[in-house]
Amino acid sequence: MSVTTAGIPVTDDEIFRVHRGGKLTVEATESLTDARALSIAYTPGVARVSLAIADRPERVADYTWASRLVAVVTDGTAVLGLGNVGPRASLPVMEGKAALFRTFAGLNAIPLALDTTDVDEIVATLVRLRPSFGAVSLEDVAAPRCFELEAKLIEALDCPVMHDDQHGTAIVTLAGLRGAARLLGRPLERIRVVVLGAGAAGIACARLLHASGVGEVTVLDSRGILFPGRPGLNPVKAELAELTNPHGRRGGVAEALRGASALIGVSSSQVPAEALAAMAPDPIVFALSNPRPEVDPVSAKRYAAVVGTGGSDFPNQINNVLASPGVFLGALNAGAPRITQRMKLAATEAIAAIAAEDLAADRVIPSVLDPRVTPAVADAVARAAQ
Amino acid sequence: MSVTTAGIPVTDDEIFRVHRGGKLTVEATESLTDARALSIAYTPGVARVSLAIADRPERVADYTWASRLVAVVTDGTAVLGLGNVGPRASLPVMEGKAALFRTFAGLNAIPLALDTTDVDEIVATLVRLRPSFGAVSLEDVAAPRCFELEAKLIEALDCPVMHDDQHGTAIVTLAGLRGAARLLGRPLERIRVVVLGAGAAGIACARLLHASGVGEVTVLDSRGILFPGRPGLNPVKAELAELTNPHGRRGGVAEALRGASALIGVSSSQVPAEALAAMAPDPIVFALSNPRPEVDPVSAKRYAAVVGTGGSDFPNQINNVLASPGVFLGALNAGAPRITQRMKLAATEAIAAIAAEDLAADRVIPSVLDPRVTPAVADAVARAAQ
Repeated sequence: MSVTTAGIPVTDDEIFRVHRGGKLTVEATESLTDARALSIAYTPGVARVSLAIADRPERVADYTWASRLVAVVTDGTAVLGLGNVGPRASLPVMEGKAALFRTFAGLNAIPLALDTTDVDEIVATLVRLRPSFGAVSLEDVAAPRCFELEAKLIEALDCPVMHDDQHGTAIVTLAGLRGAARLLGRPLERIRVVVLGAGAAGIACARLLHASGVGEVTVLDSRGILFPGRPGLNPVKAELAELTNPHGRRGGVAEALRGASALIGVSSSQVPAEALAAMAPDPIVFALSNPRPEVDPVSAKRYAAVVGTGGSDFPNQINNVLASPGVFLGALNAGAPRITQRMKLAATEAIAAIAAEDLAADRVIPSVLDPRVTPAVADAVARAAQ
Repeated sequence: MSVTTAGIPVTDDEIFRVHRGGKLTVEATESLTDARALSIAYTPGVARVSLAIADRPERVADYTWASRLVAVVTDGTAVLGLGNVGPRASLPVMEGKAALFRTFAGLNAIPLALDTTDVDEIVATLVRLRPSFGAVSLEDVAAPRCFELEAKLIEALDCPVMHDDQHGTAIVTLAGLRGAARLLGRPLERIRVVVLGAGAAGIACARLLHASGVGEVTVLDSRGILFPGRPGLNPVKAELAELTNPHGRRGGVAEALRGASALIGVSSSQVPAEALAAMAPDPIVFALSNPRPEVDPVSAKRYAAVVGTGGSDFPNQINNVLASPGVFLGALNAGAPRITQRMKLAATEAIAAIAAEDLAADRVIPSVLDPRVTPAVADAVARAAQ
């Protein structure tokens, strides 16, 4: 079998060859193969540095790697679109994530895959390891547990913590929506956005859209539109039902889409392209489920003015990689103890500003390979942290 | 101030400059700056590898870095000769250790400095992190807690675990003793060794000397010679009192040294060189305390046939770096679930065999920079693991 990306076929052979032995290495900044180097980086020289830190603990930030090391943390319960494959099978994804931090932001990152799904055990583990890292990128933890876990980690740790599947996705989706709205000449305040999916990404998208002043947000889970008092809502969805859907809409996808300006699919469900005909004229459709988008993007283009997906096979790839390396770099550069909504919105605007320089229906979001993005996001986030 | 190594002065400026930002980096094995590389190492390609591992968990050893990653674990309670400086101040030493694993054994290693000294909390933390690493090099944990911690970790984890301050030191010390005894034409079975110090290193040395068939071992703590029934012995010392001192000697350093063939100092106490005059003719003296040896090595040479220290300023440097990188490399190469006494003795013999090729009073142990040592130790350990 093979996968295709940007039209390039890649064989399983090649994929497994690249993964053999893993995708990360730890290197020493100085070779220790002579007596002088050894005596500086190890005994007796290193004792000077340890004593200096013991004397003034804040020096640990200057003389160790820990304060800028990103721990890429997962329990393996919601890995990509694969579901609960466990911590071991999640490791290739976590290594890939750590490699992205290195490649895009120049940050050191290590995967920490945990063999427990107990929120308090995960929190206790990271609290005990706190001296060893400087930030936590939480990855691929299933909803709704991910919300509780992220909240408890932010409370327990005095360093940046961000669940990427929530906020990375939300930041980039909102950036794409800003680009599309600007292209189509529609103020965000006057559009209605349907968020299809109320998992980690859906909830965070809906919250960030609301915070950014989007006119109206309608959220659906597998049982339909969220509205206050709907039976079977968990606390996170109940809170969102209050925050969104000001007109008290009820029903399923068809009811939600009627007259809507934008659809954001983060659900792994399927919507026939014909359903888009009921939306407002020239709608925006981001079908982000991977590997199979909620709406076939080629068919969607017949109904929508702007179409985006999560993959690289079509234009407008909405990919976290545009956000998370820059967000963590900015937060660490600023010495920020947490990542605020203000910093996330700043990241969104920085991404949208780059797209704005050369906006078109197939370029509402920058390429994931655009080298301007991570530095711009980092700068904006660091400024917003002040 | 400055430190000196092999006669080379090194200034504090230079030490702190080398430590700025830390001494380790995490690198990606492949650059992810093009669409094809991204689609292989990250989505969508990586999903193939995750699914393959979910399907057959043993594949995690082939397609991730984890099974060969050494976690360098400490709680910062007994850092070098500095004592309980805490986990943050221990980090430069742990980074140095990880750099040694890279430089000498080509292994990836990450520092995990824990903000707890509770044995069961440390064990629980590492059990939960188990999917993320392949071996544990325990470092700089104070005695006697280090014995309980190591034993519980070995029990709880199905991977190699070794407290380096115990066994690394013991392996290299015994290798040096073998070299010296061979040079002097004395079978190990007929010598009496005094181990001064009953901390992590002293206990492990005494046990390994006993296991290797050394004629008689006498161990002293700060209150004198260990003998069965002596008041105030902790369980570890009580066990060692039974194992050693077959003639029931009692007293202090002077009584222990009288007629002894070798002194191994691992105590941070001081012994006047004149006290060596009471030993058997042409004794062996390893004064390993750092930075100040138990006996001044220049003065010791007036009484002893062979003198070794822990530092690089004098001949015969007894340094763990000769053992631990090779021991872990060998254990990981063999897929060994633990590091046995047999593997430790094999490491000792491999080191001693290299020294034997060119034995002299100032060359009873190979140089820490001898490139033959780590591969030879790894081979011997892997064979002993079968």
